[in-house]
Amino acid sequence: MLVDTLKKIVENTPNAAGAILMGFDGIAVMQYVAPESEDVDIESITMEFSFRFVELRRASLALDMGKVSDIMVKTETKTVLCRVLSDEYFVAVVLNDAGQMGKGRWMLRSTSTELESEL
Amino acid sequence: MLVDTLKKIVENTPNAAGAILMGFDGIAVMQYVAPESEDVDIESITMEFSFRFVELRRASLALDMGKVSDIMVKTETKTVLCRVLSDEYFVAVVLNDAGQMGKGRWMLRSTSTELESEL
Repeated sequence: MLVDTLKKIVENTPNAAGAILMGFDGIAVMQYVAPESEDVDIESITMEFSFRFVELRRASLALDMGKVSDIMVKTETKTVLCRVLSDEYFVAVVLNDAGQMGKGRWMLRSTSTELESEL
Repeated sequence: MLVDTLKKIVENTPNAAGAILMGFDGIAVMQYVAPESEDVDIESITMEFSFRFVELRRASLALDMGKVSDIMVKTETKTVLCRVLSDEYFVAVVLNDAGQMGKGRWMLRSTSTELESEL
């Protein structure tokens, strides 16, 4: 189940507020938010970012750098890790702290086959 | 000297093609390209990306996530690590391979005070 995979990402990533599977059109497929982070609107965050991610993907292709596979944005209060699953979808994990970024990236990578199989 | 700091970043980051200090208007201040990567147009790459970075910064502020401090974009052939130095400037290192991303990020972090003092 998709939600179980998202839950696994969140539970195995210290300080993760939530994980979400979303289309590059900004429409969420499924999300899981950690019980202690219910005030974090991960859908709004990833939706707003998704439009900018589309632009980064276009720029990468135009620059002959191939397809974008991963994007990370660290802000003062959050870190957003995004992994592209297909031309239409990406999975993202939103962290309340950047300390465990490596673990989050690894979780996205290790579950991507699982997520892709659900698309 | 600015160029020495950029050279230090490149020489201490395995697989780095080059490092560049750029304004968010896409205008390069200074760059250093590794001798073996002279075919990599790091100025065009970071210029194209800078316009998208501006949009990500706007989105972050609009979402009450504070200022963006770091952005990473990994594509099929390159990885671009960017660290925001001020409202106007950022430093970026372009890697030919993502293997040593951690070292690149650390180099940007450890030289940022040096670079900021030159602005």
